[in-house]
Amino acid sequence: MLFYEMMLMKKTVNIGLIGFGTIGSGVVETFNRNLPLIEDKVGANLVLRKIVDLDIVTDRGVQVDPQLLSTNVDDILEDPEMDIVIELIGGYQPALNFILKAMKNGKHVVTANKALLAKHWEEIMETARENQVRVCFEASVGGGIPLLEPLNDSLAANQIQSIYGIINGTANYILTKMSEEGRDFEEVLKEAQKLGYAEQDPTFDVEGVDTAQKLIILTILGFGIFIEQEKLHVEGISMITPQDIQFASRELGCVIKLLAISQLVDGSLEVRVHPTLLPEDHLLAAVKGVFNGIYIVGDVVGPVMMYGPGAGMLPTASAVVSDCMDIIGAPEKPLYYGPQKSNVDSIKPMSEVESRYYLRISAIDKPGVLHAISGILSGLNISIESVNQEKRDEGHEVPIFIVTHHAKEQNMLQAVEMIENLESVTKDMVFIRIL
Amino acid sequence: MLFYEMMLMKKTVNIGLIGFGTIGSGVVETFNRNLPLIEDKVGANLVLRKIVDLDIVTDRGVQVDPQLLSTNVDDILEDPEMDIVIELIGGYQPALNFILKAMKNGKHVVTANKALLAKHWEEIMETARENQVRVCFEASVGGGIPLLEPLNDSLAANQIQSIYGIINGTANYILTKMSEEGRDFEEVLKEAQKLGYAEQDPTFDVEGVDTAQKLIILTILGFGIFIEQEKLHVEGISMITPQDIQFASRELGCVIKLLAISQLVDGSLEVRVHPTLLPEDHLLAAVKGVFNGIYIVGDVVGPVMMYGPGAGMLPTASAVVSDCMDIIGAPEKPLYYGPQKSNVDSIKPMSEVESRYYLRISAIDKPGVLHAISGILSGLNISIESVNQEKRDEGHEVPIFIVTHHAKEQNMLQAVEMIENLESVTKDMVFIRIL
Repeated sequence: MLFYEMMLMKKTVNIGLIGFGTIGSGVVETFNRNLPLIEDKVGANLVLRKIVDLDIVTDRGVQVDPQLLSTNVDDILEDPEMDIVIELIGGYQPALNFILKAMKNGKHVVTANKALLAKHWEEIMETARENQVRVCFEASVGGGIPLLEPLNDSLAANQIQSIYGIINGTANYILTKMSEEGRDFEEVLKEAQKLGYAEQDPTFDVEGVDTAQKLIILTILGFGIFIEQEKLHVEGISMITPQDIQFASRELGCVIKLLAISQLVDGSLEVRVHPTLLPEDHLLAAVKGVFNGIYIVGDVVGPVMMYGPGAGMLPTASAVVSDCMDIIGAPEKPLYYGPQKSNVDSIKPMSEVESRYYLRISAIDKPGVLHAISGILSGLNISIESVNQEKRDEGHEVPIFIVTHHAKEQNMLQAVEMIENLESVTKDMVFIRIL
Repeated sequence: MLFYEMMLMKKTVNIGLIGFGTIGSGVVETFNRNLPLIEDKVGANLVLRKIVDLDIVTDRGVQVDPQLLSTNVDDILEDPEMDIVIELIGGYQPALNFILKAMKNGKHVVTANKALLAKHWEEIMETARENQVRVCFEASVGGGIPLLEPLNDSLAANQIQSIYGIINGTANYILTKMSEEGRDFEEVLKEAQKLGYAEQDPTFDVEGVDTAQKLIILTILGFGIFIEQEKLHVEGISMITPQDIQFASRELGCVIKLLAISQLVDGSLEVRVHPTLLPEDHLLAAVKGVFNGIYIVGDVVGPVMMYGPGAGMLPTASAVVSDCMDIIGAPEKPLYYGPQKSNVDSIKPMSEVESRYYLRISAIDKPGVLHAISGILSGLNISIESVNQEKRDEGHEVPIFIVTHHAKEQNMLQAVEMIENLESVTKDMVFIRIL
């Protein structure tokens, strides 16, 4: 083998893997399965030289040479022969220190760590530039879907106009099940947890935090602008009921999806995460279950969409290993094109964003309630497209559904406060934006 | 400006454009519109240095310096300062000679010429290798859709299992209109010609030739195997009627799409182009009008799809200009990964391909006809899933619809011949494969 290698003068690329959890195991499995194909494609010998994890005892269900395992991260970071470091431990620390040290030691980095990128973008990219190494992160958004490389490379000639993404599989699975089976959020969430589609603490997924971190990365690549997570408007899906979904479908021909939105409106960038009603014939409405879909409009190309598995052991590993291959093929490629001279004049404050709204109000069924609500809306310059109060149950709580024409967020927020203060209104109202 | 450039030590990249037709004009328009953005991204000055066409008189509707125009292709090919040559004249010759000469003179090539690539792949790639230049062709399949780069790069770690593509916008427009409006092929084709969605001679698009050429390119990138066009099984859509579309929808919950298929079945590669019935809830069924969609399954990632405008002046220009940018960013990147050591054992002959079939038979309504047809099918080991003869009109021609279970192509062809020879059968029968 060694002789054969020398004959072909194939170079050897050494890879170190930090983090032997789900995705790390997927990476090992991908190498186990496709190494000959991968080496043939890149024309190099790839050696998975070391795997570091705090726990090197648990059986990960993949075949691995025990000699490769170590608990000492310096076996990777300080190994002068190591070419590429894959970071899959997630979280902020020690992941950040590991990545920075790897780059300072001249190693390329591949990571799936969206939280880290969304927080420490500048420091990571600056360190990569200084040390003339690449950092690749296709797996950080959309799992195995070819997304960041296409957005960065294949669409490079475009000024991106808008990005709409369904980029959290857990939230999309829950909304899909609620929609198809008419079941409650809590019930479907429990099922998702049992099936391993949702974490035991599902907050990050269902409250939009994970989506927001990914949107920060998409916004950098699409618009060249870094936005801090704290400055993003983020809403989750936990308040959505089967009632909302049914009304959206029946009366408006819409589905409800948790959307990451980044779009230019008159030179001003709107960046936000919230549940959104979108028409059933929009391609994103066909993105169901744990799948992700990202709809991007460029000024030259028009609309394109990428679809696929946004998470999971093997899909995410596909992106990680493909990133390694990309580094081997083009080690000196520029990091990413975040246009410094962006066409974006400003970030639009959420209060200035305009949208149509769907409202669900729980109120006591008695004369004058609708009149009071419509008075509040018209007083705030919000015009009503339709009102539906399907049930009659005098003296008891009934739902009232309202669809508005375009209105400003700040007016809607004021309306919500005033409506919730009405004596007959019994619960916090739900309002969802319509695309 | 020159001083400023020197200060920044930005390199200048000179680009020559051969072919000032629709897409060529799109390229000029893209530079006109987004040059500052493009230069900012790649960190270089891009100069469109020369545009060559036989016709440099016609107004192309885009702003262009008349000094750039020439009818002499050597103004590009022999210019030692020229770095990248864009070929957009299409066809085999003189496009092939231009491309080869450009590469021999050390210039990178960007082309949208699928016909040329599908025929002269090896010669073009060999010449590129010898001269250490890149040849990029994202625009050759799927127009502006990020497709070839994702297939080649972002999915590189995968053994591709299958590629299903709707990759001809004209055919898809016609099928969509026929489906939505219940109109005839001929009528919709005429409308498409008026709207500029179909050529005056539409053969290439509606008979699957264009799709076949693109499939050859997808098959090289996906499976590392070059198949000559003559060896491909190719069927078009001209025999499809609104009856077929309605039956497919009502009885089978399917739509009819012209599909390019390349898939591994037990190590054997099936490569074919034909109309196909696919379930209405398949994501490809949502690809409507002139849009394209390409559904790819990798062994690691699972299913992904790319969607977007598969043709047109600006979308195609988006891919061409992005290719130029990719070359500037990574001039030494490997050409493409067509795995030499392919996992493909053999190409399956069409006669061995198995499929479910939809059949439409025109026959005189009289006793015994169905019996004769079913006898032929069962004699050839083709079992019937359903038979529908909706109209009764004794002594006159009626349509009979049959759906079969899985059967071998060679048996079906024999059945078709025998059924068409039945005295009561009045026309050539239609048979369409079901995915």
